[in-house]
Amino acid sequence: MAEFTHLLVVKFKEEVVVEDIIKGLEELVSQVDIVKSFVWGKDIESMEMLRQGFTHAFMMTFGSKDDFTAFQTHPNHMQFSATFSAAIEKIVLLDFPVVAFKTPQ
Amino acid sequence: MAEFTHLLVVKFKEEVVVEDIIKGLEELVSQVDIVKSFVWGKDIESMEMLRQGFTHAFMMTFGSKDDFTAFQTHPNHMQFSATFSAAIEKIVLLDFPVVAFKTPQ
Repeated sequence: MAEFTHLLVVKFKEEVVVEDIIKGLEELVSQVDIVKSFVWGKDIESMEMLRQGFTHAFMMTFGSKDDFTAFQTHPNHMQFSATFSAAIEKIVLLDFPVVAFKTPQ
Repeated sequence: MAEFTHLLVVKFKEEVVVEDIIKGLEELVSQVDIVKSFVWGKDIESMEMLRQGFTHAFMMTFGSKDDFTAFQTHPNHMQFSATFSAAIEKIVLLDFPVVAFKTPQ
């Protein structure tokens, strides 16, 4: 079965302390075992026109779509979602089975 | 040194044969050794409101920012970029050093 990725591309509200939100995400993925991997990054390179105001990407990967479904209703996730939602100015969210065409040697 | 990810979130034009574009991307990353990994996916789950019309995510990861910089001016990349650009209706692009907080056991 394919792994499943929950991808968030985010612009935070100006007054938000982004470090606190990221700490919250890190706590969340630490608490929830079915989150298999969590990587994130802050754009440092893309042209403003191409990033359209978005600054951060967050990727959580699960062993299967079922694990992702379980995560969506996990109490820790639901609790943190409220905090997260309040912090964002805009977001694009994609949820997809991962096609790994080329993987590290 | 941190790995570096080139993330594209895309909505293709209606008339585009997406499989052809993906095949082109796969050829590109096969030809260019400094592309360390390439994973992609098509959203199957997110609510329309949250994905905002975007359907596909593509992530190329490099060993370093320098490798990514070299990729940007690689002739194969520049050639394929023209094809790719012509196929997209909208795009968000983020380029970032990867922070891997949780990795697969």
